[in-house]
Amino acid sequence: VTDVVSVDAVSGEVIGLVAAESSHSDVVRVCAAAAAASHAWARRSRAERSHLLQAVAAGLAAAADEIVAMARRETALHEVRLRGELVRTAYQLQLFAEAVDEGSYLEATIDHAAGTPMGPRPDLRRMMVPLGPVAVFAASNFPLAFSVLGGDTAAALAAGCAVVVKVHPSHPATSELCHGVLRRAVDEVGAPADLVQLVHGLEAGRALVVQPQVRAVGFTGSLRGGRALHDLAASRPDPIPFYGELGSVNPLVVLPGACAERPQEIADGLVVSFTLGAGQFCTKPGLIFLPEGAAGDRVRDAMGDAVAAQPSSVLLDDGIRTGFLGGAGRMSEHPAVRAVAGGTEGESGREVRAVLLEVSAEELTDALTDECFGPLALLVRYSSAEDLLRGLRLVPASLTATIHQGDGDLELAARLEDELRERAGRLIWNGYPTGVAVSWAMQHGGPWPATTSIHTSVGQTSMRRFLRPVTWQSAPAELLPQELREAEPGFPGIPCRVDGRLVLPAPAPQPVEGQVG
Amino acid sequence: VTDVVSVDAVSGEVIGLVAAESSHSDVVRVCAAAAAASHAWARRSRAERSHLLQAVAAGLAAAADEIVAMARRETALHEVRLRGELVRTAYQLQLFAEAVDEGSYLEATIDHAAGTPMGPRPDLRRMMVPLGPVAVFAASNFPLAFSVLGGDTAAALAAGCAVVVKVHPSHPATSELCHGVLRRAVDEVGAPADLVQLVHGLEAGRALVVQPQVRAVGFTGSLRGGRALHDLAASRPDPIPFYGELGSVNPLVVLPGACAERPQEIADGLVVSFTLGAGQFCTKPGLIFLPEGAAGDRVRDAMGDAVAAQPSSVLLDDGIRTGFLGGAGRMSEHPAVRAVAGGTEGESGREVRAVLLEVSAEELTDALTDECFGPLALLVRYSSAEDLLRGLRLVPASLTATIHQGDGDLELAARLEDELRERAGRLIWNGYPTGVAVSWAMQHGGPWPATTSIHTSVGQTSMRRFLRPVTWQSAPAELLPQELREAEPGFPGIPCRVDGRLVLPAPAPQPVEGQVG
Repeated sequence: VTDVVSVDAVSGEVIGLVAAESSHSDVVRVCAAAAAASHAWARRSRAERSHLLQAVAAGLAAAADEIVAMARRETALHEVRLRGELVRTAYQLQLFAEAVDEGSYLEATIDHAAGTPMGPRPDLRRMMVPLGPVAVFAASNFPLAFSVLGGDTAAALAAGCAVVVKVHPSHPATSELCHGVLRRAVDEVGAPADLVQLVHGLEAGRALVVQPQVRAVGFTGSLRGGRALHDLAASRPDPIPFYGELGSVNPLVVLPGACAERPQEIADGLVVSFTLGAGQFCTKPGLIFLPEGAAGDRVRDAMGDAVAAQPSSVLLDDGIRTGFLGGAGRMSEHPAVRAVAGGTEGESGREVRAVLLEVSAEELTDALTDECFGPLALLVRYSSAEDLLRGLRLVPASLTATIHQGDGDLELAARLEDELRERAGRLIWNGYPTGVAVSWAMQHGGPWPATTSIHTSVGQTSMRRFLRPVTWQSAPAELLPQELREAEPGFPGIPCRVDGRLVLPAPAPQPVEGQVG
Repeated sequence: VTDVVSVDAVSGEVIGLVAAESSHSDVVRVCAAAAAASHAWARRSRAERSHLLQAVAAGLAAAADEIVAMARRETALHEVRLRGELVRTAYQLQLFAEAVDEGSYLEATIDHAAGTPMGPRPDLRRMMVPLGPVAVFAASNFPLAFSVLGGDTAAALAAGCAVVVKVHPSHPATSELCHGVLRRAVDEVGAPADLVQLVHGLEAGRALVVQPQVRAVGFTGSLRGGRALHDLAASRPDPIPFYGELGSVNPLVVLPGACAERPQEIADGLVVSFTLGAGQFCTKPGLIFLPEGAAGDRVRDAMGDAVAAQPSSVLLDDGIRTGFLGGAGRMSEHPAVRAVAGGTEGESGREVRAVLLEVSAEELTDALTDECFGPLALLVRYSSAEDLLRGLRLVPASLTATIHQGDGDLELAARLEDELRERAGRLIWNGYPTGVAVSWAMQHGGPWPATTSIHTSVGQTSMRRFLRPVTWQSAPAELLPQELREAEPGFPGIPCRVDGRLVLPAPAPQPVEGQVG
């Protein structure tokens, strides 16, 4: 039995023993319990699901000090960042609770029996139902927002599915604390006890993906690890959906007008964005297209100054450190690449310094467009629109693509939009890709290798990954889900398509001004 | 070069040479053209897409006589059936045109810039965009509705994608006629010439799935063929979604009350359903759970009489004939199985007679629950609710599950609903699974092995398979898709979620009664 140990990221000191790595029989047992919990949870009302999500959000806020303190030690991320991430994680749970209450995610649809050119049509009623137990692989770089109580777990619980989390080994004690919050909330609202369970260890993760009860996988991590699990999910006797958020280079283009108008502002914004959280974001702008010439040089030089002034930062784990140093080394040594500022050497342990490199768009090759996870950015200097477009076509599809646009840039920006729309899930103007809002309109996903999915992993619509449609044909009203019963008072309580037309619920009565009570 | 030849299904006579099997370089060329056509089509307006779908529907109706005559010769399906299928196919195109006009499939969403507990949120606007070229594998059993101009093609065109159809070899001349209808409609509305292209041959089909330009696969066919193509799609350097509709046993349960109330009606309905189109439907009820005892015996005997009186029918191709005779033989020879009526021997060629078999629920095993494509049904006689539930749990997940329910059956029906909801995509009461309406509330898809997908392959929502979401962040209005521009007159022209609330377009002005013009 291998121990799962919590380690201080800066000192390397052991904080404590958290658990043992899960054995194969642990995984089998956990998945059987998840199936029973999922079956029970699927039959609870939307109000009960919403209640649980709110209770978890409240529990997180109440345990914030303890969780943030532990996450600081395990990840070396800054306190401000971790406090913000905790707020985000609780807010996200709250948004899913509201989405469950609102109910449009069920896609409720009623077609009454009617004649059609194809002949008579029976009464058909359709709605989304939960997919069943979901395996969630926690990410290293968001110990709260993409971990035990993160987006995948929240979306799966909201959809009505049980969850088994493969804990990330770089923050096991933080994971246990978050699990404690969940268990107390489950107790409080009377949800099934095994609704969210944890497993530890690489082998347990692989075993999880092939357990017959598991109906979908949510994964945030590396392209290599994600690909291996994707292939495992696809090779099951019964293939299941694998929702992987893998790697992303996130090209950012500074167009000539923008470059001339606000070089310092863009330089400052770029350095903050690519070094934020030690560059350990899936949305880090890794390739920055900058025009040749004096204006572009000003941006580059200002970025170089800012990078040189940056303190070193501590990476999340040894694997990331090895990957970063290797990738940065390979890129720096490429004959076409020039160093602008920074260096990879840190003072000790996992400390590294940010790196800024430069290459001409003409000399950009596939070897320079791979993601390098950590605080590194490559400036790609272009001399013409064709040069720029050729360079962008070498960049793998990404989660995001960004355009900085100024006076006179509209025509070229329109060409870029047309091109980049097919190569990214989110297009950003005059901003930076880091910082992913949780909202209805968010898309966090892009064509391979950014993700494996045509869904988002952030925002309310991410629930769609863990739902499947079912149609009830000519069903007796007693056997229909409550949401599809027209005789219920207040029907439709949620948005519903009736005979082809979307119908919204009547708005809640507004209190009349001046009225008491 | 291997010829693709059209053959008369009854006489075996060669009708004519249709094409040559597509070479690898043909497939490469076709996919390059599809990518260009898809790019152009994705940029056309919804009105243009709707116009094309309507023109194809009109063209199908105009060419009905010629197409039905050819399909009759190639498939031996009855004229009434084929006329109905053509009407269905045209109606389906028309429904997709209306769905494109209505626009809710775009899931338009606007979140204005605002403060949130996570900090400021930028302006985010999200909408579905077409996925890119789609490979469609035509089915043998619906030479019109699931072939060149069938549901997958219609859904992909509506979504804004180009299509490459792998033609089914059992109706190549019908396929060419349908393609002619499409090409004339494309000319008429000025759509890209290569919007829908055909390839022929098994190897061309495999090559199609791995072409880099192909972004998704729609497949209707056997579990074995579908699994092979699924694995190919999953093993690409860039895996793509494979939407396979594979095999389905479609359990049907006659509960004791229903059995006692209307034995003759149920017997007649069942025989029509399982022998319709020579049993060559993915929704054929293959396993029929019938109570032990006198009432169940009456249903069985009435079914036996009806089967014995049935004329023989011609199967679609030699592969199906071989599969049917093999499957029927294995099941008939199973020691626990009793013959009720019919026999597999037909007069000649592909003619076969319907088969009705019987087994007790206690003796039901996995070996008897595989799909046997063709006119065969197995009666499973149960003696208790537990017996019934145990038997149902042996049945692979299916497209449909049906409950016949009468007086006193409600409690057991509720238990079945709870069980079957997890094992089928459509639950049917007091009806038969054959006959799949095309409508908003239709779900044609179920857990593996019924399909590989959490989407439907029939009905307007099947478009979702060929779309992916994109978010525009802080985008200038000129670079947004028209549907997301609030300054446009008449905004929102389609259902749109604005700051979390669904907003419907203003209803079109109604003509005032008595008003002229």
